[in-house]
Order: sequence, then C-alpha cells, then structure tokens
Amino acid sequence: MPRWRITPSQRIALGYAGLCLVGALLLLLPFSQKTHVSVVDAIFTSASALFVTGLSSVNTLHTFTPVGDLVIAALVQIGGIGITFLSTSFYLLLGRKLRLGDRRLLAEERNSSTRGIVRLFRRVVFFSFGIEGVAALMFTLYLHFRYGYTWAKAVGISCFHSISAFNNAGFDIWGNNLESFTRDPFMLLLTALLVILGGIGFVVLVELVRYPKQRRLSLHARIVLGMSALLLAVGTLLILAFEWNKSMANLSPGYKLLNAFFTSTVARTAGFDSVPIGNMQEVTWLILILLMFIGASPGSTGGGIKTTSLFLILKTVAANIRGRSQIVSGHRQIPWDLSQRSLLIALLSGGVVLVCTLVDAAFEPNIPIIKIIFEEVSAYGTVGLSTGITGIIGPEMKWVLILTMYIGRIGIFTFLMSLVQRSQSRVQYVEERIFIG
Amino acid sequence: MPRWRITPSQRIALGYAGLCLVGALLLLLPFSQKTHVSVVDAIFTSASALFVTGLSSVNTLHTFTPVGDLVIAALVQIGGIGITFLSTSFYLLLGRKLRLGDRRLLAEERNSSTRGIVRLFRRVVFFSFGIEGVAALMFTLYLHFRYGYTWAKAVGISCFHSISAFNNAGFDIWGNNLESFTRDPFMLLLTALLVILGGIGFVVLVELVRYPKQRRLSLHARIVLGMSALLLAVGTLLILAFEWNKSMANLSPGYKLLNAFFTSTVARTAGFDSVPIGNMQEVTWLILILLMFIGASPGSTGGGIKTTSLFLILKTVAANIRGRSQIVSGHRQIPWDLSQRSLLIALLSGGVVLVCTLVDAAFEPNIPIIKIIFEEVSAYGTVGLSTGITGIIGPEMKWVLILTMYIGRIGIFTFLMSLVQRSQSRVQYVEERIFIG
Ligand SMILES: [K+]
Ligand SMILES: [K+]
Repeated sequence: MPRWRITPSQRIALGYAGLCLVGALLLLLPFSQKTHVSVVDAIFTSASALFVTGLSSVNTLHTFTPVGDLVIAALVQIGGIGITFLSTSFYLLLGRKLRLGDRRLLAEERNSSTRGIVRLFRRVVFFSFGIEGVAALMFTLYLHFRYGYTWAKAVGISCFHSISAFNNAGFDIWGNNLESFTRDPFMLLLTALLVILGGIGFVVLVELVRYPKQRRLSLHARIVLGMSALLLAVGTLLILAFEWNKSMANLSPGYKLLNAFFTSTVARTAGFDSVPIGNMQEVTWLILILLMFIGASPGSTGGGIKTTSLFLILKTVAANIRGRSQIVSGHRQIPWDLSQRSLLIALLSGGVVLVCTLVDAAFEPNIPIIKIIFEEVSAYGTVGLSTGITGIIGPEMKWVLILTMYIGRIGIFTFLMSLVQRSQSRVQYVEERIFIG
Repeated sequence: MPRWRITPSQRIALGYAGLCLVGALLLLLPFSQKTHVSVVDAIFTSASALFVTGLSSVNTLHTFTPVGDLVIAALVQIGGIGITFLSTSFYLLLGRKLRLGDRRLLAEERNSSTRGIVRLFRRVVFFSFGIEGVAALMFTLYLHFRYGYTWAKAVGISCFHSISAFNNAGFDIWGNNLESFTRDPFMLLLTALLVILGGIGFVVLVELVRYPKQRRLSLHARIVLGMSALLLAVGTLLILAFEWNKSMANLSPGYKLLNAFFTSTVARTAGFDSVPIGNMQEVTWLILILLMFIGASPGSTGGGIKTTSLFLILKTVAANIRGRSQIVSGHRQIPWDLSQRSLLIALLSGGVVLVCTLVDAAFEPNIPIIKIIFEEVSAYGTVGLSTGITGIIGPEMKWVLILTMYIGRIGIFTFLMSLVQRSQSRVQYVEERIFIG
C-alpha cells in the first residue's frame, strides 16, 4: 500500500483554496461589511481578489468598509506576487533541472537553491513595488495637477490603481472603471504600460532591464515580446474595425485608436475598460473572448493559455503541415513534449470553459449563452471583463465561476494532477495504430 | 529548382473543387431550374450535396426541376461513396505501409495493390447499395401501408431518404424534414439506424458483418463503437434534460426520449431534424455544436473531428495528467504522432470555425453570433442542421460557408497541405526549452 503524501500540485491547490477561505472569513467579519454579505459573495470576492480576476458579484465600494477594502487589496497583492514568484521559481527550477539533464539531481537542487529562491522572492517583490511606486507617483502628480484631486485622494487612488494595473487585477477604484478617461491618453497609456509590463512576466522583465548591458535576449523573451506585440496589434485592428461605428462612434479617429488599443491590452488579462463592454457588438465579444482565452505570458500575474502556448501551437501546426519532424524557432529546436503540452493546455482550457458554461446555462436559462461564455472565459483567464451579468446571476453560477477562477489561476494541469495519483507504468505494450481521419 | 508536381493532397483538393463546379454548372443550366438560381446559390447547393452536408440556401423543391433534383441526388451519392472509398483506402494503405515499417516500399505497394483498391471500391459500392436497398424496401412498405402513400411515391421517397440517411447527407424530401414523424418510432429509429451504420465507417461495418464468424474486433472498431455509444447516450441525456419542458414540452416522456435520441444521433453529421432546432434553447444549440464538432467516425461519410480523435485526445490528457509516457488502450500502445495529430485536428478545426465566424459576423452584424457559430460548425462538420438562417444570409456568408464545407469535407490537414510545399529540413538544431505556463 503506497504511503499517502502531498504532491507539489496538491500543495499549490490546497494553499490557494485555504488562502481564499481565509480571505472570505475576513470579509464575513462584521467590521468588514457595510451591508450584509452572503457566504457565496464573500468567497466570490475573496477568490476574485486573490486570483487577481476583478469580477465583482457585489459593488465593492458600497458593500465593504475600508477594512474590507484593505483585505481585498491585500489579497490582490498576495495573489499577484504569489503567482509571479511561484510560476517563475517553477520555471527556473525546471530549466536548471533540464539543463543538468538528470532528474535525480532535482531533490538536491531544491535543497541547495534555498538561498536562490529567497533571492528570487526578494527580487520579485522589489520589481513589483518599484514599478508600482514609480507609476503611482506619476498618477498622483497627474491627478492632482490635471484633475485637481486633493493630495490624499490622489495618493490613495494612484497606489490602488497602480497595484491593480501592474498585477493585472483590474479592480476598479473609480466607480465607473476608466470610462471617464476615454479621451485621456496619459491615463489610458500609462495604465496600458503597467498592464503590459505586468503581463510579459518577471523573467522577461529582468531580461529587458539587463538588455542595455547584455545585448541579448533568450528565445523565451523574444517569443513573449513578439507574440505580445502581434496580439496587441491584431486585437487593436479587429476591435477598431468592428466598433468604429458602434460603441466608439462618437469618438474621433485618434481616440478610437487609443481606446481600441486600450481594450486590446486589457482584454489579455487586466480587465479594465474605457468603453463599456456591454455596448459592444457580439462579434467584438467573440474577439475579446479569444484575447482573454490567450491571455498574458507565463511567470506573470496574467491568466489564459499564455502567449508562448499559442506560439508553440502555431509552430506545431506549421511543422506538421510542412512535414517537418522538428519545431524550430530562432535556430533552436523546441522539444516535442512542450509542443504537446501547449496543445493539451488549449484543448483542456476550452473543455473547462465549455463544461462550466453548460452547467451555468442550466441554472441561467434566460441569459444569452454568448454572455455566459464571455463570463466563463473572463473568469478562467482571470481577466474580469464582463458584459454586465456578474451582479444578476444566481448563487449556482457564482459557485461555478469561483471554481473556474480557481482552476484558471492554479492552472488546469496543476488542478487535474492534484486530483490523481501519478505513476509510471512498468509494462511496455505493443503498438497499434487507429484511424483518426 | 524543384520540379513542380501535384501532390496527393492537391489532387484531392482540386478534384473536389472541380466536381463541385461541374455540379454547379449543371444546376445553372435552364432545364435544372424552375426559378432563377444565382451563381452563389448553385455552387452552394452543389457543395452542400457533394460534401453531403444538406444546408440549403434555396428551397430545393421549389427551385429545381426534377432534372435538377436528380443532379443533386447524384452529387450526394458520388460524394458519399467517394469520401468513404477515399478515406478507407487511405487508411488501409497507411496501415499496410506502417506495418511494413519501410517508407520506401510505399511506391511499390501502391502499384501492386491496384487490384485491392478496385476490390475495395466494389465492396464499398456493394455495401452502400445493399444497406440502402433493404432500408428503402422497409420504408416503402411502411409508408404505403401505414400512411397510404401510392407505391410510386413510396418508392421514390424511400429511395431518396435511404440514400440521404445512410450517406449522412440529411437532404429533406418531406418538405418539413422529419417533423411530421415526431411520434413515429419506426420512421425515426430506422432513420437513426441508417445514420449510425453510415456513420461508424466502412471498415467497422465490415468487421461487424464478419464478427459472428471471426469473434474479434480490431482496436479501431472497439474504440469507434464505444465512443459512438457513449456520445449517443450523453447527447441524448443532455438534450432530454435541457429540452424536457421546452421544445419537447408537449410530448410524452417516451416520445421525449425518442426525439432526444434522434436529435443526438443526427447532430453527429446526418442533419435531419424531428423537432425544429430553432425552437430549442441556446444551451441545447451549444450541446449540438459540440456533437456536430465531434462528428462521426473515420472512413464514413460523416464529418467533424471524428470519434477516434476525441478518444485519443481524452487518452492523451489522461496519460499526461497521470505522468505516463505511453498511451495505452486495450493492451495496445498508441503512437504519439497519432495523439499529437488528434490534438492538432481539434485545435485547427476550432480555429477554422472561429475565423470563418469572425468573417461572417463582419457581413451579418444583425444575426446573433451563436447562430453564426452554429451554422459554421454545421458546415464544417458537413451536418446541415441550422437554426434557420441559411435562407436569409447574404452572398458573402454563403461563400464563407461553401469554403467551410469544402475544408470540412477534404479535411483541414489535406487542405493546408495542398497549399504548402512539404520538405524535410536537413539541419539539426540545438534544443532550447521555453516556458509555456
Ligand atoms: K484581472
Ligand atoms: K449532413
């Protein structure tokens, strides 16, 4: 009988669930609430904050006291730094392990690299606070001198907004999100810059900082930067094309471009909006669903299947069609197991969203299915955009969305691996081909 | 400079396109039309018949003369036998090739197996006509004695309907599809049986016929039969659950079950309906979209990604989660390249449908996006179910649907491979891992 022990996947899964419950308990205490908050709404809010999603089933400003707001802000910061640190250390460990080419060394590696892990953690915190600090300072000055905010109000709002933007949380401190700043390039572009910097991932961020000295970028960084630029451009053009005479009809061409770019940027995980999503065409929702599904880059606070997965999928398709047996990028061969994993991530993610949508639809027969799909993809990609249904749905769909955010945050593989016992079969079977058409 | 030659993929792609144009030309001739038919509608009808889809942009009965109807029927029969023969011979050649384990033998194989190919073709025709003939006889007797059809009318309708059902074409000879037979188990179940027999593929059909003597089924046959049964059951239960009090509210529980089973059966490529699809809930459309996307089994006239692809995807997911390095089914190991191909087929198919949907939506801003997605998946899976928009869309979306049917029929890989030059790279590159999150 095998001894039962907690695997790394289970530790991550349980850790996130535990933190989410602690947050919910804090939000349920009397000093956190202005009005009564149900258990499901408390868990929903806690999950939305900890998993840096930003979907709100209750109006945050009217429901929670300043103490409650502080709990939410703390959950966002813990969630943001936590996921960046976790995924980056996982990547670095994996990279080192594979470079050594010996799986048995992994255990030793883990012990000997404790100092490295601590240093990594400090660096993640330093980077986050550094970028957030500079941005908050710029927002403070701008809001004070351009809009006449008092210094206190300007500082408070700027700090919250910088944290919310850099961590791709998308929590709204303005009351109407960024819809007052539709014609303010400074606010939208600085927010977009924070979102992009937060979304390309810590590893790439470090490489960019070092670039002036080292003059070289890893394959990973080049792929992330290339795919991010491509997705931002394609998203902007498509949104521009479909919303030109619709939700953006009353804007000048320059502002149309600005807001299309902003929407394209935030769809890939941040979840702010400068133009109400509910006013957009259904086809634009479909484009946003695709952008939300793809999401940000690995090692960031962003969700989705990630830019690098999409890149590998495209490369794998190209290699298969052209009859190539290796996937090559930048004169480097990419291992097949990575390619297969990227295909699986995309398919499984689609599967999760579809199953959750079907369950939701059973409980919400009167909500158009495209809005449910939008909400589910938004939750899965921890984006937080909504067509406006989050406040009107019943508790059943809220529970499903909580589960979706949870799976989206810890990753579909981590989630599934935490549920099963991994084992290597010793038996070698004879091959037989089947016919897949 | 390499000599330009037509690859097998290009031959298939050009052959189908050519046949489709010949059919359209015949339909455009004066003796085929009762009312004026535009070029796009002629090509649409020809494609829908040849690719055994069954979507109709014009009312077939009111638009075409009996000669035109005969052209359509011939296109269905050519399309049905053609695809069965092509895909089966491809499978058998591939199987033999790989069993010999030597790619250089393939050329010789092809020459020496000409007699085998001719025998296969004869057998496909024999099986098709045999099953269609028996079914037509049963339909004829039933329609004459139960509904009082004249013998001539009963024979004509029965032949057309049997061909339409066994080839999974779904063309409607009744005017209102099978909606008059909602409470007729004989009609619905015999039609469903034809659809199922046509959809499991010729290879499995032959194995089933031989089973009483040989007492063994190949891995392929067991997978096809198992997945088909599973999908039929799950589809039936889901449709039953979501339509119990909706479009099927006025039926008794037994008839609800009958019609849910029938809908589940025909969604996986045949495209008949006994209950109007337009009356169903959006969530049921989503279920039908999934069933249509999965489709029938390889080596049949059915479309979609195929039951075996779905099986391999599920197996690959399970193997990955459990950390297994081989995919095992029925004590046989399934090669990784097949697993990867099944993942790619699903993703590429999803990609085709999404891109086509976006293009359609640009031209049809007033049609709900879920109806466009439904129509595109129906075309891609050569199903022919519709929420009722096929007759009202503009020519642009018709062109897109023609392309979708075409890609769905010749297969996404054949289509893409026909567009590019295949070549094997001689250079071996150094491996570098990237971070896919
Ligand atoms: K977010
Ligand atoms: K069909």
